[in-house]
Amino acid sequence: MKRIEHIGIAVKDLEAANNTYKAVLGEDPYKTETVESEGVSTSFFKVGESKIELLAATRPDSPISKFIEKRGEGIHHMAFYVDDIKAEIERLKKEGFRLLNEQPKPGADNKIVAFMHPKDANGVLVELCQEK
Amino acid sequence: MKRIEHIGIAVKDLEAANNTYKAVLGEDPYKTETVESEGVSTSFFKVGESKIELLAATRPDSPISKFIEKRGEGIHHMAFYVDDIKAEIERLKKEGFRLLNEQPKPGADNKIVAFMHPKDANGVLVELCQEK
Repeated sequence: MKRIEHIGIAVKDLEAANNTYKAVLGEDPYKTETVESEGVSTSFFKVGESKIELLAATRPDSPISKFIEKRGEGIHHMAFYVDDIKAEIERLKKEGFRLLNEQPKPGADNKIVAFMHPKDANGVLVELCQEK
Repeated sequence: MKRIEHIGIAVKDLEAANNTYKAVLGEDPYKTETVESEGVSTSFFKVGESKIELLAATRPDSPISKFIEKRGEGIHHMAFYVDDIKAEIERLKKEGFRLLNEQPKPGADNKIVAFMHPKDANGVLVELCQEK
């Protein structure tokens, strides 16, 4: 894992949360993007070599709606940047970890991504991501 | 905020979690440390310019015990590095944020730290930290 690529935060209202994190981080989001396949609208803030990704649901069956219903707003996942996501998936499988995606899928911010099972990582939803 | 200093993950068994994150990150923790005042044992892994901090309770009234009882294991807080923590606390107060610590207090890994109220940051417990 090369670096923390981003921390994903589930929020109810993207515009309000943009204002909050603009005040915390001292700058505007550099990008907003909707990923229809995942049912999310996202915005990204740069912090050093990492990003903060705010995620709001675009429909009631979005994973973000379900997360917020169950746990409230808060950190949803932690993403690591990897150079070779397919090799990393194979390495982690050999280490005994379960992947939610055995094949990388398209994510936001021009990435291909895969998620690890949170039960195998102390309740943390770990995302691997690589530039497309 | 200069960078993500670390992500704090609440775990039940520090030794088992060290083995898990060693397998995920591909290296050993570079440091373990107990902070008696907070009731936590911690271990630190480097990832790029950031760290992963695993936190286990050392006593039943530790904030980490309470967190795990309520929510289970998982990400507990997100810490940003700042150059001047006192100035940052004042800036955030002027922006309308509530701080859990109006004065920085000693934290792990040779830092002084202060926490923001999670209700003001979409359910995220945000820590500010500065080298001692």
